[in-house]
Amino acid sequence: MINQVPQYNDIQLAHERIKPFIHRTTVLTSSSINKILNAEIYFKCENFQKVGAFKFRGATNAVRLLTSEEANKGVTTHSSGNHAAALSLAAKQLGIPAYIVMPVNAPDIKKKAVEGYGAEITFCKPTLQAREETLAKVQERTGATFIHPYNNFNVVCGQGTAAKELLEDFPDLDIIIAPVGGGGLMSGTAISAKAIKNNIKVFGAEPLNADDAYRSFKNGTLIPAGPPNTIADGLLTSLGTLTFHIIREKVDDIYTVREETIIEAMRMVWERMKIIIEPSAAVPLASVFENPGLFRGKRVGIIFSGGNVDLNKLPF
Amino acid sequence: MINQVPQYNDIQLAHERIKPFIHRTTVLTSSSINKILNAEIYFKCENFQKVGAFKFRGATNAVRLLTSEEANKGVTTHSSGNHAAALSLAAKQLGIPAYIVMPVNAPDIKKKAVEGYGAEITFCKPTLQAREETLAKVQERTGATFIHPYNNFNVVCGQGTAAKELLEDFPDLDIIIAPVGGGGLMSGTAISAKAIKNNIKVFGAEPLNADDAYRSFKNGTLIPAGPPNTIADGLLTSLGTLTFHIIREKVDDIYTVREETIIEAMRMVWERMKIIIEPSAAVPLASVFENPGLFRGKRVGIIFSGGNVDLNKLPF
Repeated sequence: MINQVPQYNDIQLAHERIKPFIHRTTVLTSSSINKILNAEIYFKCENFQKVGAFKFRGATNAVRLLTSEEANKGVTTHSSGNHAAALSLAAKQLGIPAYIVMPVNAPDIKKKAVEGYGAEITFCKPTLQAREETLAKVQERTGATFIHPYNNFNVVCGQGTAAKELLEDFPDLDIIIAPVGGGGLMSGTAISAKAIKNNIKVFGAEPLNADDAYRSFKNGTLIPAGPPNTIADGLLTSLGTLTFHIIREKVDDIYTVREETIIEAMRMVWERMKIIIEPSAAVPLASVFENPGLFRGKRVGIIFSGGNVDLNKLPF
Repeated sequence: MINQVPQYNDIQLAHERIKPFIHRTTVLTSSSINKILNAEIYFKCENFQKVGAFKFRGATNAVRLLTSEEANKGVTTHSSGNHAAALSLAAKQLGIPAYIVMPVNAPDIKKKAVEGYGAEITFCKPTLQAREETLAKVQERTGATFIHPYNNFNVVCGQGTAAKELLEDFPDLDIIIAPVGGGGLMSGTAISAKAIKNNIKVFGAEPLNADDAYRSFKNGTLIPAGPPNTIADGLLTSLGTLTFHIIREKVDDIYTVREETIIEAMRMVWERMKIIIEPSAAVPLASVFENPGLFRGKRVGIIFSGGNVDLNKLPF
């Protein structure tokens, strides 16, 4: 089922390709959070990335690899989240059309972001079946290339550039933690981290209420998510075949965290660091809260995956 | 009434003195905000300063200039805001006591911050008279030195180091804007900016609902604030004799802004820049919103004065 699995060399090439278009995001530390957790934590701030999320890395890599024939016909995806915005902006920068399929009940703020990047939105019913059928129709009509949000070789390579930058800046990390949703960031992170430093530990962090990656990882077979119910709205999706394959091979362990801990971690970052992260981005820090013994005295890299929140619907 | 007015040389000395203890805060830009406002804006992020506000600069300068006899007896102030936290931490770092007089109705979050820095809090009724009487008693009991939040030579010198750093990093600014409350940041900013670049414009920005500095500046006499009613809780205080003297001499103009514009500016920063600023810090950007013609095509430095907000009481 897996045709081709990205190697670190592919991530290096992706990085050279996308560097002119992405931000090399800053890495922040917080002495007060370090003190509370008895660890040295290095936060890679993809909340400051373009469109406010790491997703812009993968989307940019994917669109830049289209043939000119493909590019002329544009790109398409179904997403109500950061990948939709990322693909729209990546397409706009390349000067090609983007066609986004979104459920009618997607938040206004997400619709506006995608419209703002000039993409064409097709609304559908909020079911996976409706999304896939609508996407098929859009593809038939336009000939656009489908860029899957995570189960895509080029997308995984793009996402892996965040951990590459983090380890270039801080090569002495003992552990790196990424949130797991569909697994694009997680698998890219694992490939980069293990290639750069073979004794580094790579952990995934996942909401207990959307723990398909945890269960798949522990069982050794791909178990799709039940109906997830978590504030971490970027982590609702299930692993894909490609990302599961990489995660099984490269990730050392996956930790699940409770909803209260996610909110507590998010709030601590807002209050202590004065930066805005979305709930999904707080999940790795929440895993440090819940497993303090594992991280005590360690140098821990954490990827803040994004900063897109609806300020009218905050959990505090 | 004014014994001595700080000169730029005093700010340079203050900077050398406090450098080991403060953060040299980053300067951020936002391409989307620049596009919206047709200007190039450079935000000096004092929300990332220790205690989450520029106040730590002035407080540190003041405590480091105490004689050892004074230092042994500690420092005191009355404040329910960022100066209380700043003075408490500056004293703690020097290993001397801090005695803070706070109104009983001060927000819990502020009380906890001050307690967390190990200061002794004395509560009083929420009137200026009660504050001053309580402070006098604390001084009598302890012999502590009163560090005024803004009408103090050493405090003004410390606050002026933020604009000094900003202009060292970006010497080509056409305009610099600071928020005006008691005028400590505003007067320090004006001294630094005019000394470093004599043709730079220095503007103050103030809530229309707390416009004592605007009225004092326009009338040429110190007019105390009426009962202010603004979300910008760091700007409730009136100018002091020292800060008014400097502002009259060095500031080119003061602009007042409406409450809705403050909230709009704050929200734009949170959403576009993914960083947390407090309402007072949004006041200069609000003045750009309300006077777009003045800033079009200009390079504008803005000091984000702080990032301390109660997440349970957000205006959106």
